[in-house]
Amino acid sequence: MALPGLQVALDQIVLSEALDSLEHLAPHVDIIEAGTLLCCSVGMPAVQEVRKRYPQHTVVADLKVADAGETMVRMALGSGANWMTVICAAPLATLEKAHETAQSLGGEVQVELFGHWTLEDARAWRRIGVTQAIYHRGRDAQAKGQRWGDEDLHLLRALAEIGIEPSVTGGITPEDIGLFKGIPVRAFIAGRALYGASDPAAAAKAFHTQIAEYWKA
Amino acid sequence: MALPGLQVALDQIVLSEALDSLEHLAPHVDIIEAGTLLCCSVGMPAVQEVRKRYPQHTVVADLKVADAGETMVRMALGSGANWMTVICAAPLATLEKAHETAQSLGGEVQVELFGHWTLEDARAWRRIGVTQAIYHRGRDAQAKGQRWGDEDLHLLRALAEIGIEPSVTGGITPEDIGLFKGIPVRAFIAGRALYGASDPAAAAKAFHTQIAEYWKA
Repeated sequence: MALPGLQVALDQIVLSEALDSLEHLAPHVDIIEAGTLLCCSVGMPAVQEVRKRYPQHTVVADLKVADAGETMVRMALGSGANWMTVICAAPLATLEKAHETAQSLGGEVQVELFGHWTLEDARAWRRIGVTQAIYHRGRDAQAKGQRWGDEDLHLLRALAEIGIEPSVTGGITPEDIGLFKGIPVRAFIAGRALYGASDPAAAAKAFHTQIAEYWKA
Repeated sequence: MALPGLQVALDQIVLSEALDSLEHLAPHVDIIEAGTLLCCSVGMPAVQEVRKRYPQHTVVADLKVADAGETMVRMALGSGANWMTVICAAPLATLEKAHETAQSLGGEVQVELFGHWTLEDARAWRRIGVTQAIYHRGRDAQAKGQRWGDEDLHLLRALAEIGIEPSVTGGITPEDIGLFKGIPVRAFIAGRALYGASDPAAAAKAFHTQIAEYWKA
């Protein structure tokens, strides 16, 4: 099983702050995400600037697209993103169009799992060729005290069995990593736990240490 | 029953094109929406510029928020929007936070109906105080030939009975307006059908004429 990657989600509103936060962190993460907040705040320059500064990283535009799949993918990937998120509530036609367009441009879409969705949906996503999803514990849900539980782990395993590699996000700390042992997680995603740490590089290393510990051969 | 309003959705990617398209159209619409594409492309300057030029209009930031309800509302309303959209797939906690924050700032949230949602969801939205939703025929679904039908009209009536005023969008033309007679539609939303018309003011008037025809006392 491949080692899960480490993804930083830039959830700032001000672009210069987001870019500054990467300075000591970027060498220690695999994937850089221009978060929804940042994209809604400053638009595609968020993706363009990250791509310009970090040409070797995988870059994600977390747009949570619900419609206009082709146009959104062309905009995001044209700005330098490798991957773009589509919300699970999007019509299958939108996801299909986004997936096809992303493939034609050498990129991928990721289904962002929020609210109602079913494993039947996941099978439909897989049938049209999608292989990635983001399993999310929302920050508002999290603030209301919802924790990781057996139901989360069950769904993550079920997604993997269907052929959808999940990335995992929502208040993840290095201490949580072990919970996901045995699941082919594509990436663990953290925001302020990484860039808000007093030593972001050390925080990233703590994640990598845990990942290596639980995913060792 | 109040007359439905007319809302133009700015679905461009380039801000100057969006603003130019309003020049002859704005006096003939009630509500101006900074569309998701435009917001993802250029960020909050889309909302700020519309507000600056059209201080009297109701302005919508169509962000289809799925998380971080409070931060997103503060950003959108702080940029000049009156209303902001939240995707129906958002956790109830996110919608609640967004609604409370919008209320405290004198604005409103609208639930964007995409994919799976139920009337039970709608009752939960109403219970936390939400009174607006956007009933959407997605453009990709539309391109695949899905038309307005009895199911749409049934759901729109059911939403209204629950106390959620729907706005209606998705390839609406003046000829479609009569279909919705008797439903307390908050606004009909059109994009290119308005700003892409050879005479945008005349196109807007054609909508208003139909609205007046079918909603007359």
